[in-house]
Parts: sequence; C-alpha cells; structure tokens
Amino acid sequence: MTGNPRRCVCPGSYDPITKGHLDVIARASALYDDVVVAVLHNPAKQGTFTPDERIELITASTADLPNVRAAAFGNRLIVDVCRELDAGVIVKGIRGLTDYEYELPMALMNREMTGVETLLLPGNPALSHYSSSLIRLIAGHGADVGEMVPEPVLGPLLDRLSGFDA
Amino acid sequence: MTGNPRRCVCPGSYDPITKGHLDVIARASALYDDVVVAVLHNPAKQGTFTPDERIELITASTADLPNVRAAAFGNRLIVDVCRELDAGVIVKGIRGLTDYEYELPMALMNREMTGVETLLLPGNPALSHYSSSLIRLIAGHGADVGEMVPEPVLGPLLDRLSGFDA
Amino acid sequence: MTGNPRRCVCPGSYDPITKGHLDVIARASALYDDVVVAVLHNPAKQGTFTPDERIELITASTADLPNVRAAAFGNRLIVDVCRELDAGVIVKGIRGLTDYEYELPMALMNREMTGVETLLLPGNPALSHYSSSLIRLIAGHGADVGEMVPEPVLGPLLDRLSGFDA
Amino acid sequence: MTGNPRRCVCPGSYDPITKGHLDVIARASALYDDVVVAVLHNPAKQGTFTPDERIELITASTADLPNVRAAAFGNRLIVDVCRELDAGVIVKGIRGLTDYEYELPMALMNREMTGVETLLLPGNPALSHYSSSLIRLIAGHGADVGEMVPEPVLGPLLDRLSGFDA
Amino acid sequence: MTGNPRRCVCPGSYDPITKGHLDVIARASALYDDVVVAVLHNPAKQGTFTPDERIELITASTADLPNVRAAAFGNRLIVDVCRELDAGVIVKGIRGLTDYEYELPMALMNREMTGVETLLLPGNPALSHYSSSLIRLIAGHGADVGEMVPEPVLGPLLDRLSGFDA
Amino acid sequence: MTGNPRRCVCPGSYDPITKGHLDVIARASALYDDVVVAVLHNPAKQGTFTPDERIELITASTADLPNVRAAAFGNRLIVDVCRELDAGVIVKGIRGLTDYEYELPMALMNREMTGVETLLLPGNPALSHYSSSLIRLIAGHGADVGEMVPEPVLGPLLDRLSGFDA
Repeated sequence: MTGNPRRCVCPGSYDPITKGHLDVIARASALYDDVVVAVLHNPAKQGTFTPDERIELITASTADLPNVRAAAFGNRLIVDVCRELDAGVIVKGIRGLTDYEYELPMALMNREMTGVETLLLPGNPALSHYSSSLIRLIAGHGADVGEMVPEPVLGPLLDRLSGFDA
Repeated sequence: MTGNPRRCVCPGSYDPITKGHLDVIARASALYDDVVVAVLHNPAKQGTFTPDERIELITASTADLPNVRAAAFGNRLIVDVCRELDAGVIVKGIRGLTDYEYELPMALMNREMTGVETLLLPGNPALSHYSSSLIRLIAGHGADVGEMVPEPVLGPLLDRLSGFDA
Repeated sequence: MTGNPRRCVCPGSYDPITKGHLDVIARASALYDDVVVAVLHNPAKQGTFTPDERIELITASTADLPNVRAAAFGNRLIVDVCRELDAGVIVKGIRGLTDYEYELPMALMNREMTGVETLLLPGNPALSHYSSSLIRLIAGHGADVGEMVPEPVLGPLLDRLSGFDA
Repeated sequence: MTGNPRRCVCPGSYDPITKGHLDVIARASALYDDVVVAVLHNPAKQGTFTPDERIELITASTADLPNVRAAAFGNRLIVDVCRELDAGVIVKGIRGLTDYEYELPMALMNREMTGVETLLLPGNPALSHYSSSLIRLIAGHGADVGEMVPEPVLGPLLDRLSGFDA
Repeated sequence: MTGNPRRCVCPGSYDPITKGHLDVIARASALYDDVVVAVLHNPAKQGTFTPDERIELITASTADLPNVRAAAFGNRLIVDVCRELDAGVIVKGIRGLTDYEYELPMALMNREMTGVETLLLPGNPALSHYSSSLIRLIAGHGADVGEMVPEPVLGPLLDRLSGFDA
Repeated sequence: MTGNPRRCVCPGSYDPITKGHLDVIARASALYDDVVVAVLHNPAKQGTFTPDERIELITASTADLPNVRAAAFGNRLIVDVCRELDAGVIVKGIRGLTDYEYELPMALMNREMTGVETLLLPGNPALSHYSSSLIRLIAGHGADVGEMVPEPVLGPLLDRLSGFDA
C-alpha cells in the first residue's frame, strides 16, 4: 500500500457535478475518514465551467459533508494525485458495463504502478442516467434539469448555457 | 450507515478458497482494520468440503494476515451477517461482466435493506479464471492445480477428490 | 404480422408479481389497447404460489388498469399463446445486459416462427433489482419487502413464506 | 403519456439509410399507425449526404410503406421532436450490447423529461453489422455494398464517395 | 504448443447438431487440415440423443466435409481430448457476450494447463439463436424447425420428441 | 476461402507494439506458417511513431520469431491487405467485451466481403490492460513502463515522449 487506506480520492471531470456524482461522494464520505474530490481536466480543452468554478460548485454541493474537499489537478495521473495526497484508495461510481470496462484497465494499471486500489461503488440506479454531458445537452435545449443536479449547480448551469451552444 | 466502515466482510462459498479469493482477501486486509471471511453455504447441499473444513483452509491460507478471520454463517442473508458483526462494508472481487451483473442487484438490495455498502474490487486478471468449480473439475480429472490454490489447500483437495467424482 | 399489433402480451412466471413487473405492465397498458399478462409455469415444479394464486395477485395489483387482464398458460410456447390471443406484440422489461442476452435469441426465434415481434422496454432502474427470486429470498429471512411488491402481494407473500423455506 | 401511442418516431442520422435501418422501419410500420423517420444531424458537421438528400433516400427506400414518412430535425432533442409530432413512442433497433448501453440512459432521460417511451426492437442479426459508417468506409475503398443498402441508395452512394475520401 | 496446430477440435454436447454448429464446423474445415467434432456428455444425465446417435447425426450432416470426423469423449477434460488426438487448437463459435464470458476462463485454464489454444470464431449471426436447447423446446411443442437443423437431423428429432417431453 | 489458411494477418496501429500485442503475435506464430503484422494508420493523423518506426520496433521485438514479418498498409481495408498477401485468416487478440463488440461487425463484414475469417484469441489477462494509448499516457507522465513494452521499445518510447505531450 502506498497511501492511507482511510483517505480516498473520487476523480472526475465534474463539468458540472451531478446528483449521481454527489451520491457517490456522500456514500464515500460515510466510508472513509477523508474524501478528496479530484477535478481532472485537459488544459487544452475548454469546458462548460473552469476548474475553479467546478470546485466551487462541488464545495457548495457538499457543504454538509465535513470530511469532503475538492481540488483541481489538471491532467496529472491519478496515481500521482494519490501519492501527493497520501491517499490509498480511489473510489469510482459505476453505472453500467461500459463504465466497468472503461475503469478496469485503468484500475489495474494504477494498482500495478503504485499499489493504490480502486474500489467500484455501484451507482444509485435511479440516478444512473444523469451524466454531465447528457445534462448539459438537455439543459442547453431548455429542458428542466432541476432534479438532476445539486441545488447550487442549477442557476450557474442555466446562466452558462444560455450564452453559448452546449 | 449501519455498521463499522473499517470492518469488511468478504462473503462466498469458498469450497475451497482459491488464489483468486486469497488475492481479494489480502488486498482487503490492507484496506480495512478487520476482514471477516464469511463462508455461506446451503445446509441442504453437500459440498466438497464441510463449512468447518473450509474455514480451516481459509485460516491456514491467511495465517500471515493478522486482521483476517473466517466464520461460517449457513444460508443467512449477508446483511444479517454484517449486522451481527457490526460490519459496514462488503468487499467482493469481480472477475468480469458476469460477476458484475450478478453482484449488482444484490448490492443494491443490501444497501436498500440496511445501508451496508458493497465495494467491488477488480480481481487480479492473472487469477481471474481460478474459480473453485473449475479447479474442482480439473483437479478431479488429475490436472495439476498447484498454482491455483493456496499451499495449505492443495493436499486436502487432492485427498478429497481422489475419493469421489468432482 | 400474425396478430393484432395493438394487443400485447407480457409473459413471465410472476411468482409473485413485483413492483418491477407492475411498472412494465402499467407502461404497456398506456401503449397498447389490450395487455395480457401471461403466467407461464412448469407444471412439474411447485412454485411459491399456484398459477391461480399468481393471477389473483396480478389482478388485484392491476385493478386500476382496465385494459389489463391475466391468464395462465402452463408451459406453452409464448408464440402459441400470442396466436390464441391474436396478439402481435410481446413486451418484456429488461433490467440489464443479462436480461438482454437472455431475451434476444427467444425474440429472434419467436419472430422467425410466427412473425410476432418482441419489444424491449427498459425497466425503471430504481426497481431493477426487485426480482421475484431475490424478494422471496429476503422475505423468507424476515426482511421487509413492503417497498418491493404491490400492496396486495405483501400479506399473502408473508403468509406463504412463514410456512416453509424460500 | 405525452403523445399518441400509435405514432412512433425512428430517430437516427441515416447517412445514408442501410438495410438494417430499413428492416427496423418496415417492422415498425407493421406495428404502428404512423412512423416518422426523424433525421437528426449536427448542423456544424458536414456528412456524406445533406439532410435533404438523406430524406430523399429514405423516402425512395420506403416507397412501399404508406404509413412511413421522413423529416429532418437538425440537432433538436428527440423529445421535442416527439412533442411536435404528437408521437408517444420512440422505436430503436438494437444490434448488440454497445447499442443497448448507449440507448439506455437516453431512453430513461427521455421518459423522465416527457413520458415518451423508447421501445427497443432487436435488430435482424443477419443485418446487424451494416452500420452507415462501416458501409461508407468500405464503399469508399471500392468494395461492393449492393447487399447492404436499399436499392435507391446504391447509385448516389457510389457517386458521392467517388468524389472524396470517406 | 502441445499439439498439431493444423488439427482442431470443436467440442460441444451436440444434442443434436444445429445449423449453427454446422456453420462453425464447415468454416473450421476450411481453416484446418483435420477437424474433430468432440461430443462431450455427462454419463449421469440422459440427453435427447445418446452419444452414439449424436455422432451419427454429425457424421451424416458433415458427409461432404472429408476432413471432419466426430467422436464421443464422455466427460473428459477437453485438454485431455486434445492431447490424445494431438490437436493444438480448440475452435469455438461464439454467438454473443454470454458465450464469450463462459468460454474465456476455460480457454485461459486450458492454455495454462497444456498450451492448447482456443480460437473463437464469431458465429454466423443469422444462425445465432439456434441453440440445441431452444430447438428441442420448440420442436417438442410442434413448431417447424426444418430451417434450424441439418437435413439428416430433422426426422430423428421429430421422432424422438414425439415420444416424450422436451 | 479467398486466401491461404496457414497465413494469418495481425492488424493494428501498433503505436507502439506492447507486450500484449507481442503475446498475440507469438502465439499466432506457433499456430500459423506465416504471420504478417499489418500496421494500419490514418495518413492524415500524426502518431507517436511513424509507420516505418513502428515496423522497426515490431521487427526488433519479434526477432526470435522467424515466421513473423511486419509491413505498413496505410488506411487500406484489411480484406484488401489479406488479398494482396494471400492470407486466409485475421487473428485478433481480445481483451474484453468492448474489444469483442468492436471486432464483431468488422469480422462479419470482412467475411461477407471476401470470405476471410477472423479468429479471436483471448488475450493473456495479465497483459490485458497494456493498451498503447494507456502506456503512452503514463510514460508521458514519467511512469515506469518497462514491464509493459518489449525491451526494444522502451528506449525509443521514452526518447519520443520526452519531447512532446502524449
């Protein structure tokens, strides 16, 4: 083990955080002493929200979870993020087989490189279709996404999408 | 949360424990304070080993993991086992999509019933084809399974299978 | 087409009907003029409920859906059931890839034999883990299944399971 | 239900229509009173055929199906298309698990937003490998695709691909 | 390599051989010098046809393939069969993901035990739903299975099923 | 059959060859008289290595396999490559269901176009997470990939990635 097994990292792009993300983070916060929500992003690509804005939205959405914090790490490898944070565990929600097949080689690679373990948490099925991209798409067409994102996200998301094409 | 999030249960029939099982148990022992290997079995069906024998083999195979213990629980619900043990987490190794599809509804049901979480640990792919049933099958036909089971299991397994049909 | 495309059959063993089944039936009742819930069962195997009891429970659970009726068909082929009923469509809820892989060859076979079409309706994910077998299992161990079955099923299910092993 | 359950929409990019698409459309035309083939396309991306050309090819290929019509809807949400058309059902052919995993979150989202149902029709397996992209690819390299597209599509496709790179 | 790479084995229960099996065997016969169709069966279980009858039906169905022969091997391990036959390759048709997930651990195990390789041949999708069990089921209910089995199988299958329950 | 069934082609982009690729190639070299490693690449896209460099690295990595050779074929159809080489078989390693679903339609299309068969070889699971893209990614971030690529690849890969962004 390379890191503290009581500290976990929940990596993602979180552009923006959805209720599906929040479900995983909240459940992880009950299972670990510390949860770090790690925003990964490609500096060369512009998202809907900047990394700083994404962190702000995560922070507001997790205000009632004292052992959760968020930080941005650019396009660094998640194992390097874990090493810097002394975290021994990566927790990923999975929503279906496509997620599983996508996560598996990375989990194996990460374990092989540094010993950090990836634990897969079955996503709440009632939220499993709430991906950031689908939410951006339908919100950009004027559909009501109030049930799909945490309350602090709704206003900023509508503001942002009214200005440009999702 | 209904139980201690630092105590996990690794349920299974373990008839007998394989190197694939042992990999999951050893990795869990690095992630949790206590690991209980819970032998579940249908009292109406005779296995290759009795529950007591299975526990003996698990105990011998995990002798170097001080925070691991094994116990048999008949055909009780795993959530009842967790409640009795005050364990907040179930850890299951998964070896592929069939495992995932099988574990998913039980994980969701268990969480709904008591709040206990199931975390899926991607199995070591080099061991992913070592199921107890396949090992019993080929050992029963005289194939060498020395690489597939923990050392304390090999002798008893060969003894047992020489007597009757796998 | 061999049958009326506005009459659909929802086949299953329904031992007993769950909230997942009811969701599919109710949605089918909004899509078709008539919905026949076809109880299929192997006469050689005893279930938890008799075919007549299953129909009674389905009928009570769908009392507010006037275009739904239930009938038992033993182990007849579903295409023969459709022919007898002059139904052109089979509607099946699917809860995941295992369901899909199971339904696919039967759907293709049924279409090849008689032209009857099978339409797959994605199951409500919040109910996707409510299989009859899992519900019987946990109810038989005393767990609360009140959220998982239609209201008319709860009493009879608890009565039945108190007498024998699930 | 937000729309007429006897009117269905078959959405896709149809660039161009294949025999696999045509199979789904023809089967839908036997199951519903009206079938609208909805061409969706991203106005920012140039396809092999323009939306108008795609509709022309669909119309020619479905000439013997009087209750089928085709129309283009840009990149609008399919639920908005259904609302405008007063259609209660989306019918999608699925050719495998990848299709299923792709369609599932959209089907759930669409149902959640407006109540429109998505019914998945198992694709004819003999045609399941005929995707528009694979057909464009091999036709662009001079392979014979006469068995893979409806007769009215073959000439225009060969004309189009002779001019530029698929 | 433990065996001749130009001799392959096509294992299965073949109770009875279907057009799907025949497609795989015929394609294998074009790829290898020798093809041995290996009938595996559990001596404790009675099938629809005896092993000798299954071989007779395979032999009649492959009469025009001179490099194909059939033999029964009880419940022996396929690797032992390959060793006896000096065959270096197992060829299995796969019809979908369930087949793939089922074959994978056995293929890995067989390779680990003796070096014999398993090559997976994508089944003809037009035949992918023709499993022996589904054919027995529907033929037992009087459906026409003439398109699903090789010509020499049809008569004996109907004779056999008329006498007892499929 | 359009080509020699003892000559196989292993197609891929090989940018660069990994230990997973090498495992498939070495196993194919024991099964076939000749193995051609066919480098396919899109001339419009720049890779990490040029096609000539990729061939050089494959050639160096397979120096001990006398019946293996490598050649580049641009973005030609693999069936055209097989025709030119008089090869009757395509061998592809598969690492999971995503690979299977991706290969299936192409295998069916290739067989339909020219009769060339695609045989799927289950990848060594211990190497199944070693994709070229993941290796480029982590090597570009300074991680040790010495176990993941053949020895002749390591130096050139590190040289190449030190200069620009993976």
